[in-house]
Amino acid sequence: MSLDGFVAGPNQSVQNPLGENGESLHRWMFEAQPGSIDAAIRNSIGAGVGAYVMGRNMFGGGPGGWDESWRGWWGDNPPYHAPVYVLTNHPRASLEMEGGTTFHFVTEGPEKALALAREAAGDREVHVAGGADCVRQCLRLGAIDELWLRTAPMLLGSGERLFEDLGDVRFEQLETVHSPLAAHVRYRIVRP
Amino acid sequence: MSLDGFVAGPNQSVQNPLGENGESLHRWMFEAQPGSIDAAIRNSIGAGVGAYVMGRNMFGGGPGGWDESWRGWWGDNPPYHAPVYVLTNHPRASLEMEGGTTFHFVTEGPEKALALAREAAGDREVHVAGGADCVRQCLRLGAIDELWLRTAPMLLGSGERLFEDLGDVRFEQLETVHSPLAAHVRYRIVRP
Repeated sequence: MSLDGFVAGPNQSVQNPLGENGESLHRWMFEAQPGSIDAAIRNSIGAGVGAYVMGRNMFGGGPGGWDESWRGWWGDNPPYHAPVYVLTNHPRASLEMEGGTTFHFVTEGPEKALALAREAAGDREVHVAGGADCVRQCLRLGAIDELWLRTAPMLLGSGERLFEDLGDVRFEQLETVHSPLAAHVRYRIVRP
Repeated sequence: MSLDGFVAGPNQSVQNPLGENGESLHRWMFEAQPGSIDAAIRNSIGAGVGAYVMGRNMFGGGPGGWDESWRGWWGDNPPYHAPVYVLTNHPRASLEMEGGTTFHFVTEGPEKALALAREAAGDREVHVAGGADCVRQCLRLGAIDELWLRTAPMLLGSGERLFEDLGDVRFEQLETVHSPLAAHVRYRIVRP
């Protein structure tokens, strides 16, 4: 997120899914120096995760019915190495990639996707990968236990907000770390 | 600030200057337990500060010409113990309080208030106390070197934003600490 609360810049498009300047939010991940705090965080992200839930826009390929040639942003060997349940309104056969990642396309809504992910994960964690709308849906369902908020020290001015139309969600800080490229705060979601 | 970016809740008024639920943002300060991180931060806030700049709304007393009976929110002995330069459009004689605090009312704009505060502070720091509009004016002037952002783990849903209409201001994280009541991040403002 930017300091002014945006997780994507203005004018998001198929060509520019993070919007104008939105990629800069992720510098902590893509420009992490070996041995840095950011590198350690980036390398630990998938640890202990048994399944993922992801929104359609994060998987990409544009809106509407599927162009079956679209297999995600991540090449043949995506960084998930686990089942990924993609929320979509458009049915599609599961997509088995290299390295243990299989994308499953769920048309029955986020509760179903979360249930499938929990079943697949067993006693490992389910990670809601994003994007913002997917995270908001899961927050509204009370399905999120912990949230890592990574704030880049920049302003975007406008764009897509993460914390919007959420109602009364309460948080508690568990952990903070920072690098020159981001302040990372881990929150527990407190049930009312 | 709330997680969703508000430094005051909706419907700010003379009676309720922080807006609905806005006081909850300051729980880290008012409910800090003795010996806690928050208490240490609260107790250190004035250290090394030789003068303050403050907006009219933070000083209070309602908009427009002065009701001279209004002497701020803080009683006879305000917690500043130093000169405080209050931005206002309405002239008023300086107000000497107990404990070393004197409120000076500056009608020539934030640059003038900052200059007076720097002169009064000598080699000590000038602290921009708030509120949000005063901080934004000083950020736009490039007059802020460091910013402590204190984020309360709550949502306000609407209200007054701090980071709005600021243009291209870049930040760098210097320090993070957290307590159950707030995540505190110290930023350096990076000049382009």
